[in-house]
Amino acid sequence: MSADVEVRAAAVEDWTQIWRVLEPVFQAGETYTYPRDISEPEALAAWMSAERARVLVAVSSRAEDRGTVLGTAKYLPNHPGAGSHVANASFVVGQDAAGRGVGRALAAAVLDGARADGYLAMQFNAVVETNERAVRLWRSLGFEVIATVPRAFDHPVLGLVGLHVMHRQL
Amino acid sequence: MSADVEVRAAAVEDWTQIWRVLEPVFQAGETYTYPRDISEPEALAAWMSAERARVLVAVSSRAEDRGTVLGTAKYLPNHPGAGSHVANASFVVGQDAAGRGVGRALAAAVLDGARADGYLAMQFNAVVETNERAVRLWRSLGFEVIATVPRAFDHPVLGLVGLHVMHRQL
Repeated sequence: MSADVEVRAAAVEDWTQIWRVLEPVFQAGETYTYPRDISEPEALAAWMSAERARVLVAVSSRAEDRGTVLGTAKYLPNHPGAGSHVANASFVVGQDAAGRGVGRALAAAVLDGARADGYLAMQFNAVVETNERAVRLWRSLGFEVIATVPRAFDHPVLGLVGLHVMHRQL
Repeated sequence: MSADVEVRAAAVEDWTQIWRVLEPVFQAGETYTYPRDISEPEALAAWMSAERARVLVAVSSRAEDRGTVLGTAKYLPNHPGAGSHVANASFVVGQDAAGRGVGRALAAAVLDGARADGYLAMQFNAVVETNERAVRLWRSLGFEVIATVPRAFDHPVLGLVGLHVMHRQL
């Protein structure tokens, strides 16, 4: 399924391509709580420079677009101090890369990486409940919805919808 | 109950007294996910300078210690962008101010302030489940536990305990 996708640590030189993936998704505003008008420097700081964050990219290994960044993920402690053994993670798949197994490949790499780094669990704080593709993927990978915060996300089309808190042990 | 406590916006000049309240609580490590060895400059940045945060202090209006900071609270958007209509809040009551209604006075001011600022709900992400005094206070003020993240807090005495996510509409 994801034989033509390779996941590796992101380098600073990947940023231009990463931003090409992030910008339209953030602008659409249907799946993330980043400001829709986030500037490139703000996004760079938020995605690449968060404290203790590890950033990954999924790149194509197909002949026709080899090396193209198809998606990106990051993980970091969900809380500092006494909560830092639980990871939080974020994933964005490029809008024209759907169906190539990019999300699943990133998820596998993030789960492996977080385990290797000693995290004991992973928690998502804000999975938009109408983002069915994402919810389905996380459930298939062992995450459970432990709460749905009602009306916590202002969807540009649907109005106020819930945010799932999802969790799994590692 | 809180007739001898007044709540007002914090000023920069309050910091020395605020730090006197925060430091022993953060060092004890039983109720907050701040690093136990957080430095004063780091705490200043985290408590006083978080983006869009409003910071309050509860000060004594008793004759014998008038003006002394007894506790502090802050509130800010729980998420940016499409999640910014839900407030998050944090409260710390000085260890020698217990029983004076400081937490309740701060909570009332934070709820009123958040409503006035247009927030539609309030969410706590990390209420340590063994912090019974806090859990009881929030329940009495209409907050519900919508999830308990298992083993998400490394308590210095009790080991891994749960973190409640608590929520109420405003």
